[in-house]
Amino acid sequence: MSATSGTRFLVFITGASRGFGRCLALEAARKWGPAVDMHLIARNAEALTAVKRDIEASLSDQSKIGVRVWTWPFDLGNLETLEPNFARIFATVDEFSAEQESTAMIMHKYGNVYLFNNAGSVGPIAYAKDLCTDLPALRQSLDLNLTSSILITSLFLRRFCTLSSPSNKVPALFIINISSMAAIQPFHSWGVYCAGKAARDMFLQVVAQEHQGEGSARGEGSMAGGMSVHLKTLNYAPGPLDTDMQIELRESESIHPPTREWSEKAFREGWLVRPEESASKCLRILTKNDFKSGVHIDYYDDM
Amino acid sequence: MSATSGTRFLVFITGASRGFGRCLALEAARKWGPAVDMHLIARNAEALTAVKRDIEASLSDQSKIGVRVWTWPFDLGNLETLEPNFARIFATVDEFSAEQESTAMIMHKYGNVYLFNNAGSVGPIAYAKDLCTDLPALRQSLDLNLTSSILITSLFLRRFCTLSSPSNKVPALFIINISSMAAIQPFHSWGVYCAGKAARDMFLQVVAQEHQGEGSARGEGSMAGGMSVHLKTLNYAPGPLDTDMQIELRESESIHPPTREWSEKAFREGWLVRPEESASKCLRILTKNDFKSGVHIDYYDDM
Repeated sequence: MSATSGTRFLVFITGASRGFGRCLALEAARKWGPAVDMHLIARNAEALTAVKRDIEASLSDQSKIGVRVWTWPFDLGNLETLEPNFARIFATVDEFSAEQESTAMIMHKYGNVYLFNNAGSVGPIAYAKDLCTDLPALRQSLDLNLTSSILITSLFLRRFCTLSSPSNKVPALFIINISSMAAIQPFHSWGVYCAGKAARDMFLQVVAQEHQGEGSARGEGSMAGGMSVHLKTLNYAPGPLDTDMQIELRESESIHPPTREWSEKAFREGWLVRPEESASKCLRILTKNDFKSGVHIDYYDDM
Repeated sequence: MSATSGTRFLVFITGASRGFGRCLALEAARKWGPAVDMHLIARNAEALTAVKRDIEASLSDQSKIGVRVWTWPFDLGNLETLEPNFARIFATVDEFSAEQESTAMIMHKYGNVYLFNNAGSVGPIAYAKDLCTDLPALRQSLDLNLTSSILITSLFLRRFCTLSSPSNKVPALFIINISSMAAIQPFHSWGVYCAGKAARDMFLQVVAQEHQGEGSARGEGSMAGGMSVHLKTLNYAPGPLDTDMQIELRESESIHPPTREWSEKAFREGWLVRPEESASKCLRILTKNDFKSGVHIDYYDDM
């Protein structure tokens, strides 16, 4: 049974205002367009509104009716505010999907629920020996790239798993970490980024293990057929994307020169992956839904 | 050339007041006893003093003369205080080893310098969905288990690598992360610990890469033979140790029951590894010094 068998899609994307997050939002609207509610989160309110407009402009009149987009401008690196902010988002989910129905009924309406932990920053780019010169930057990076992603995952699980029981028809839940080659391979002058990505991958492996055995015995399937709640996690490395992050790498003065040269050459010679293509591949993997929960999949992997 | 060829050993151990850190200190004194300066760091001043006494009691009168131990009671989780605290430690290193000689001469005196990033906490032990209920515990754990270890590594590199140049006879530097099976394998209800350990492993892989090519071409060797500074990192997983951490696991109410049962059974049936034995193995690996920099080595691996 594929992951598209539910009645309606509910999608949360962090870092949705630009780059890969923006492409995920556009792609989700296009692919799941007839029936998707999207909650887009990022710091920049104007950029989020622009993404919402872009989504609406990209859809046919018929699809537009079925696509609802909410924008949530706040800073994910501000950990103390995450819980109240997500409480506001979840309250909106309830309000706009319940139509006076009970909470259990909300779960009936959504067939598949996706959380894309995409937000992240590229820095600090510095050799290990220089990291101690800027403790605030180090903490800020770990807050945004690691701690917030753990916290958001936890809030999501608490909200959507608590309601689930084998006696309810409940949806398929997916948590997707936008990972990187840097999660499994070290890169000069990028220690904090690599460490954070490795930690995120491992955290979703643990979540996958904690929810093993839910859904079908083979770890596949969806809400169809009276199965119990089904949660899967995916660590998706989107490839070297042609986004602002690559520009930051190309322009960084503190990066290991060979890495910068690679980045410049990749740009000049057109090796970078179009984020639209990678977002499309990510959604294909999720829709096909035959991946092992917790696995790390790279854009270049055969799927 | 083995790593023991230097003139004198300089050793830093975090979390040295008990458990594996304490055993590392005792073992380092025993093994490198004729000529070792040790700086032991932990929160508990009394426990640190007791470890110092235990070290002195364990040595012959002759060895005692050559073993000097300093204790540094402070909280490694308090990130803002790490830089000034390590500045005090490094000032003491200078004062007590220089004997009026120049800084370059200090480096001559120490043949091998070791930093053991051992400090860590076991918690929070909780399923992912429950982590959001205690943000302070989550942050505290990542501060102590991840951020402080990155920061200390950075301070160490800055202090000892800056002085190094190919024209000086400089020592072999080793940074050892006390890792865990949890760095490479997920464990139920232990997501933050696993994520932190995975991140620490990756961080030292990056440090290894940043210092690749220093020392001998094969990445082996020591300060002998006029070679330039030589830095290697090691991720050492000490095995399931018979320490307070296992007691915490056995007594935790929030841990995944099968994990607790395994821990109880391991204790009852004597599977746990004696920390003295594991510390001894760690030091043998370092002395032999034929490991690849950045590698993860488990107590159970053949070496």
